[in-house]
This record gives sequence, C-alpha cells and structure tokens, in this order.
Amino acid sequence: MDRVKESESEPPASSSSSSAAGKLEEEVGRVMDQARELHESGASLLWKISNEEQSLRQKAISLESSIRRVRSSINSLISKKLLDPKCARKLEEDLQRASSILTDGEAAAFLPAEAQGRFLRMFLGPINVRASRKEVQLKVKEEYNSYRDRTAFLFLLFPLTLLILKSWIWEGCLPAFPVQLYEAWLLFLYTGLAMRENILRANGSDIRPWWIYHHYCAMLMALVSLTWEIKRQPNCAQKQRGVELFLQWAMMQGVAMLLQNRYQRQRLYTRIALGKANRMDVVWGETSGVDGQLWVLCPILFAMQRGRNPFYDILFTTKRGFEAYVGLLLLKTAFVGVVTEWQVICCGILLVLMAVGNFINTIQTLVTKSRFKAKMKRSKSKPELD
Amino acid sequence: MDRVKESESEPPASSSSSSAAGKLEEEVGRVMDQARELHESGASLLWKISNEEQSLRQKAISLESSIRRVRSSINSLISKKLLDPKCARKLEEDLQRASSILTDGEAAAFLPAEAQGRFLRMFLGPINVRASRKEVQLKVKEEYNSYRDRTAFLFLLFPLTLLILKSWIWEGCLPAFPVQLYEAWLLFLYTGLAMRENILRANGSDIRPWWIYHHYCAMLMALVSLTWEIKRQPNCAQKQRGVELFLQWAMMQGVAMLLQNRYQRQRLYTRIALGKANRMDVVWGETSGVDGQLWVLCPILFAMQRGRNPFYDILFTTKRGFEAYVGLLLLKTAFVGVVTEWQVICCGILLVLMAVGNFINTIQTLVTKSRFKAKMKRSKSKPELD
Repeated sequence: MDRVKESESEPPASSSSSSAAGKLEEEVGRVMDQARELHESGASLLWKISNEEQSLRQKAISLESSIRRVRSSINSLISKKLLDPKCARKLEEDLQRASSILTDGEAAAFLPAEAQGRFLRMFLGPINVRASRKEVQLKVKEEYNSYRDRTAFLFLLFPLTLLILKSWIWEGCLPAFPVQLYEAWLLFLYTGLAMRENILRANGSDIRPWWIYHHYCAMLMALVSLTWEIKRQPNCAQKQRGVELFLQWAMMQGVAMLLQNRYQRQRLYTRIALGKANRMDVVWGETSGVDGQLWVLCPILFAMQRGRNPFYDILFTTKRGFEAYVGLLLLKTAFVGVVTEWQVICCGILLVLMAVGNFINTIQTLVTKSRFKAKMKRSKSKPELD
Repeated sequence: MDRVKESESEPPASSSSSSAAGKLEEEVGRVMDQARELHESGASLLWKISNEEQSLRQKAISLESSIRRVRSSINSLISKKLLDPKCARKLEEDLQRASSILTDGEAAAFLPAEAQGRFLRMFLGPINVRASRKEVQLKVKEEYNSYRDRTAFLFLLFPLTLLILKSWIWEGCLPAFPVQLYEAWLLFLYTGLAMRENILRANGSDIRPWWIYHHYCAMLMALVSLTWEIKRQPNCAQKQRGVELFLQWAMMQGVAMLLQNRYQRQRLYTRIALGKANRMDVVWGETSGVDGQLWVLCPILFAMQRGRNPFYDILFTTKRGFEAYVGLLLLKTAFVGVVTEWQVICCGILLVLMAVGNFINTIQTLVTKSRFKAKMKRSKSKPELD
C-alpha cells in the first residue's frame, strides 16, 4: 500500500515523455481496432459456417431418406417378382455406392450425429467429441486399433508374469500388491476402451452397443476385484483359486485378442477395399466376426462357413467357453463355501453374463454375415454389368 | 445357399416390370448424382472453412503478440518514469479491454489451442475436445460448476450417513461394502473432475495445473483406499481408526466445498462484470481464493485482506490444516504399528502431499491477488479518465 502511495507522489513526468506517450496511445488505439475487427470477422465467419452447414445438413438428411425410400421400393419390386434379379443387383450396388459416398465422404460430417450417450456425459460433461473432418475420424479409429494392439500384448504379458512368478518365486502364494496393480490396470484399460468406443460411435462407426456394454461389465468386474481381499498363508493355494482362474482366463483372452486383431483387421481392410464396409467400421468388439461359439454349436458353424480357418474357430470357441466356465467355477466356489466373499459371486455372475451376451451377439453377427455372404455369392455367380 | 440358387432360377421378369425398372434406374441415378454433388460441396466447404480459419488464426496470433509488445513497452516507460501514471493506467485499461475482446469473444476460437495433455489422450485417444463456439465453451464451464455443486452435496451426505449409521445401527463397526461403494464413487468423482478440468483448460480456462494434479492425487488415493481391507470385529474401533478419520475429513471437505462454491462463484461473476476476469475462468480448484492457510499464517493473512469474511478464513484454514493432520495421523498409525498396511502409509503421504501443494498454490494465488488489489486501489484512488 505504501509502495503505491509513493509511486503516486513521484515527480511529474518529464517533457520528453509526452511524445513517447502519444506514440503508445496511437499503438494501443490500433490494437483496439484490430481486436474489434478480428472479433467481428470471427463472429461473421462462424455465422456463415453455421448457415452453410445447416443447408448441407438438410440436403444430407433428405438424400439419406431418398436412399432408404429407393431401397425399399427395389425390395418391394423384387418380392413381387417385378424386377429382373440382374437389374436389381445392379441398382442395389449403385445405391450402396451412393450411400458410401454419403456416409464415408466429407459430407458425412453434416449428417446428424448419434447422441453421445450417458457414459461420455458422465465423465466429460457436454463436450462434443465428434470430429468434423473424415481424416480426423479415421485417425481416431486408427488410434483405437493400435491401442487394442498394445493392450492385447500387455493383456497376455501381465497375468503370464504373475503366474510364472507365483510358481517360481512366490512359492504358490500370490502377494496382494502386484495382483491389485494388475486389477487397477484392467480398470484403466476397460475405461479407456469404453470411452474410445463411445467416441467412435459418435463419429459414425457401426460398433455394436453390446461390445460397449461388455466393457462396462468388465469395468465393474475390475472395480469389484480391487476390493477382493487376496488371502495369505496358510492354505493360500485353495483360497486363491478364484484369482488363479481369473488370471488364466485373462491370459487366454490376451492370446485371442492378439491373433484376432491381426486377422480381423486384414479382413476389414479387404471388405473396405471391396466397398462392403464403411471406413469408420471397426472389428466388432472383443471377438466379433468370431463365429465359433461353445462346443455345442461347433459342427453347425463349421458347416455354415467352410472357407474359414478352423484354427480360429477352435481358439475362440475355447475362449468363450472358458469365460462361462470360469464364471461358473467362481459361483461354485462361492456356493460350496470355499470362498464366501460377495466379490466372488459378483465376478462369477458378471463373467457368465458377458459370456451369454457375447454368445447372443455372435449369433446375430453370424446371421447378418451369412445374409451378406448369400448376396455376395449371388453377385459373384453372374458377371457384373458395370 | 439353396435359397439363393432358387431365386436365381425364378421365371424371367414380366413385361410390366421394365417400366418400373426404368423408373427406378432413373431414381437411383438421381440419388447417385446428389450424393456426388453433396460430397463435393461438403469437401469444398470444409476446405474454405479451413482456409479462412487459417487466416483468422494468423491475425489472432499477431494481435496477441502486439498486445504483449505494447504492454511491455508501457511497463518499461513506467519503470523509467517516462510516463504519467494517469496516462499509463488509461493505456493499460484499454489494452486489457482489447485483450478481453480477443480471448473472450468469438475470435478466441481461432487462437491456437493449449495442448491437450497426456491425461485426456490416455483415456480418449486423439479426439479434439475444444469447442469452436464461445457459447458451447461457456456451457461446458456452467456444467462443470453445476457438477461441482451436485457432488459437493453428495460429498457431505455420503460420509455423514456412514458415520451416523456406524454409531446408530452398526454398533461402532463399519461394514466393508458401503465404505467400498463410497470409495468407488470417490474414484469416479475425481476422474470426472480431472477430465472436466483438462477439457476446460483446452477450452481456454485459466485453471491452475496444480488443481488438476491435486485431483490426480485424489484419484490415486481413492484407488488405493479401494484395496484397503476394512477390518471386522474384534477391536474394530481401533482398526478402523484410519477409515473414520478419512470420513471425517471428507465431511469437512464437503461443507467447505458447498460454502465456497456459492461464495466464490459470486465473486467470479463480479470480477467478470468488472472485466477483471475472463468468462472461461473458473474458481481456482478446491479452495482457491481461500487465502487462509495454516494457523501460523493467519495473522499475516488477516492483516493483508481486511475486507474478507473471517468466517471463511477460519473454515478453510481449519480444513487445510485438518487435511495435513489426517495425513500425519495416518502415517503415525502406520509407523507406530496399529495398522501396518501399505495403503495407510500411501494415503497418508498423498494427503500430506496435497496439503503442502495446496498451501504453496494458495500462497501463489494470494501473491497474484494482492498485486491485483494494489493496482485496483491505485486506479480507485484517482477518478477514471474514461
């Protein structure tokens, strides 16, 4: 305060200061004008953009509805047998191409966005996660894929290390800290996956809602497992049975993810190149496109898709079955009374729930795919018109 | 497969179909043309937008640097006593107004964005969370404030309920599940706050990095506390001492947050109205603007800001002190050997760390603020020129 008073009672400014002050005043005035000008041109640009976007949005919406209308009239003519199948195929292909241009080109930014869902709102608030440029959207998708690759590797490495150390150094008894560290990592991983998948969906990817719900279940499981007390000696082999099963299942999951990421991405690229998939589509969830499902279904599935590599079917069927198996084992240990904690029951139920959900969704994927294949066969068996 | 073969061997289309097919073909052609046209106009609009944005961005950057340059030359003239203080104040005010127009108006969207930081990238991937329109940015900020209000209420209610039930129904012994539920909620809450604050920062808010780091520490503490085994009978009063302290601290935090949110927001609105704060600024973190800090500093602080309500100072000082106190108590219980789990030591260290960090940051805030007040006093003591 005293300092302030001092500066106010200083001698009046010298005469040479007036010219400097005048020059500064001029400069400040210029800065003010520039700021106002910039503000106005910014506002007018934003206004112009919003108007033009609005008009493009209208056009995109009306085009989308025309495509739907024409498609349904083609289908109705086909069902009334009023349309030559060769001609119908050609029209359908053209329509598919128009639809691809709309949803896969720069105009896609102007299609109305998918609602962003509660999950993102809960964590991020009302911010918009939709990219307006296709190249950014594709970058987001690429990053999602590479994130999955990186994590699949860790998914294998982490439980493997724990299990090796357990029998090698820890003499059959897992210490709590490394297991909890692993569980915390799982929670982080599944949260990241669920976020990224919600973002992809908002950016026009066709990812199935189930695979996102599946990751919500996995998040919950990781959270519950964090509160799961890791029992110590004596008898820890028996008490830690649940944790051990869980780690074995996670290792299997890791192997499956690694192989499948590589294999399915290749397939997706082929489909995109053939114009059968959108560039924003992703491999459907954890084990999508993986048609093997529980041993019961194996013969039917093998019969239905002879072109597939049976190695993958066996692998993924085993994995899916193992998920349900681990879930049921956990429930059994809880009910028989070896481990009576609620966490064990909860994780068991979640694992069974995920296995059942995956099963239903794989069947749906399979149905969609076999319809698609039937169509492909039809168009391959006759030469293209165009 | 057989179904497909059947449809291919169906009788040739009837003669009436050719006109329908022709009409459909025409329509498909029209749809194709529209899709191409829309794609082109979309691409050209995006290209135009990006060009105009680029040019505005250049202008905004150059204006920002001119403001900095003029400000430093004013300061150098003042220090050389070449400028009349009255005139200097007027110039500074004008410059401040230009700077506000730039950072608070529509042109702000074209200023280069803050880098988005590792935290958001880890969870969301490379998506851009910056809103281009000021109104959206302000909506994000409003939502952040209302989120804080809602959670402050729960922050008080949750531990209060646990403590009441403990002495009323649970006979002095907290069961594990409700406490773990509360800890999981804390983890979710702090993650949401850290995300929102990172997003605000990317949108041009001046939130101090420390308050975000502070929430990272709190996230870690919630995660660690989830793995913290809640001991049962016998002797649970002694074994649960750490948890009880933690709950008491949380209650205090809740009261402080509730009062402070209300009081500080009012102050911020006043500052914005006076043109002294940016519309995107937020109340600085948990207890920012709260100048009371540990009993030692109280007299000095009271002397420095006589206009403040001493009730707040006492409240926040107590709270800040209590944070460090709980941290130290936790460390003591761990080292004396009552509770020997690593979680207790870790939470203790984190609480002390947060208290120290808050202390340092509050001091910095205080220094900035007293400089600002000195300036205000100077300009109040003389009549305004404009």
